[in-house]
Amino acid sequence: MNYLEALSRRYSVKKFNHQLIPQETLHNILESGKLSASSLGLQPYKILVVESEEMKHKLIPAFYNPSQISTCSHLIVIISKKTIDENYIRGYFSHISEVRDIPIEKLDLFKNSISQHITQKTHDEIFNWAEKQSYIVLANLMYAAAIENIDTCPMEGFRQDLIEEILDINSETEKVTVTLALGYRSEEDHFQHMKKVRKPNEKLFKFI
Amino acid sequence: MNYLEALSRRYSVKKFNHQLIPQETLHNILESGKLSASSLGLQPYKILVVESEEMKHKLIPAFYNPSQISTCSHLIVIISKKTIDENYIRGYFSHISEVRDIPIEKLDLFKNSISQHITQKTHDEIFNWAEKQSYIVLANLMYAAAIENIDTCPMEGFRQDLIEEILDINSETEKVTVTLALGYRSEEDHFQHMKKVRKPNEKLFKFI
Repeated sequence: MNYLEALSRRYSVKKFNHQLIPQETLHNILESGKLSASSLGLQPYKILVVESEEMKHKLIPAFYNPSQISTCSHLIVIISKKTIDENYIRGYFSHISEVRDIPIEKLDLFKNSISQHITQKTHDEIFNWAEKQSYIVLANLMYAAAIENIDTCPMEGFRQDLIEEILDINSETEKVTVTLALGYRSEEDHFQHMKKVRKPNEKLFKFI
Repeated sequence: MNYLEALSRRYSVKKFNHQLIPQETLHNILESGKLSASSLGLQPYKILVVESEEMKHKLIPAFYNPSQISTCSHLIVIISKKTIDENYIRGYFSHISEVRDIPIEKLDLFKNSISQHITQKTHDEIFNWAEKQSYIVLANLMYAAAIENIDTCPMEGFRQDLIEEILDINSETEKVTVTLALGYRSEEDHFQHMKKVRKPNEKLFKFI
């Protein structure tokens, strides 16, 4: 199956069949999330993987349409950082220094330019920027899943306070941005038979 | 090459080699953008594909780091909608009705729930939501390009007013959210030899 066939087969599953995804497949999908590009390489997010039945069950009341949560194999929760402080930037650069085996002082110019860029932004700007980076992760996870023939449903419809309370998120510094259920479509989910609707090319694309 | 190898090979190219991408490959990459999931299926964006050398040249002053613009094969500009009005929603539903061959009245319940959902949101909320959907498109384009062995560089660093003026964007209703240069890496771009830096698993993932 090539990647366009995989994406065409994908749809937002409303009901999964409870079957579990093999660990190796899950690992590959998560690796795809890890390899996501992010602005300045800062990866302003964390990826929570809910695999216990107990935790999935606890999360059901947090979703407006919980049929995916109660039937999926895994639920991924992407958590964005609300702030980027000097400490975070320092940690990032000490990690670059280690991975690339470059003395940390040699990175000062790049580090200062990033610090300056970040401190110029308002709190809201930082946060919107961080959330957008999280959506690259979301898309990469969905894309890899499609290629692996694993079904998905991205979900924004949850009770913010409740999901953060259940997951013990520090809402001062982090926010649940988006969630993604993974699994196998139930035969009963009739949405799988509907034709995909996308804007016609002339409305979506413009070549100049 | 499997998809993890493709993503591992990917990096944000600073300098391309001017070579053009074959039309069929470009078509497949764009198709991958078209197939992107979006919240409620609303696709609140347009995809501008800059292929003329003249337009690429005009855009150079709009970028803080223009080395990609002057050397890439194509520049993709993703434009988000700032507002979703009743007219847009009506158009979306008449398109669903057509594609799926369902009488429009049968979609009223879904249509009303979407209208209500959208009108409850503030202007800023709509716009942030639309921009996040655009990042799924960005990620899908990068992902498909990686699989096609085409190099990319996503870019947020542009002069908002200038790029919108050059591209004749109506900034009342639309915004340039992000851009993506496509092409082939130049041998001179030394960034290709640097080790990829990603957060270690224990900092990125949490399994519960």
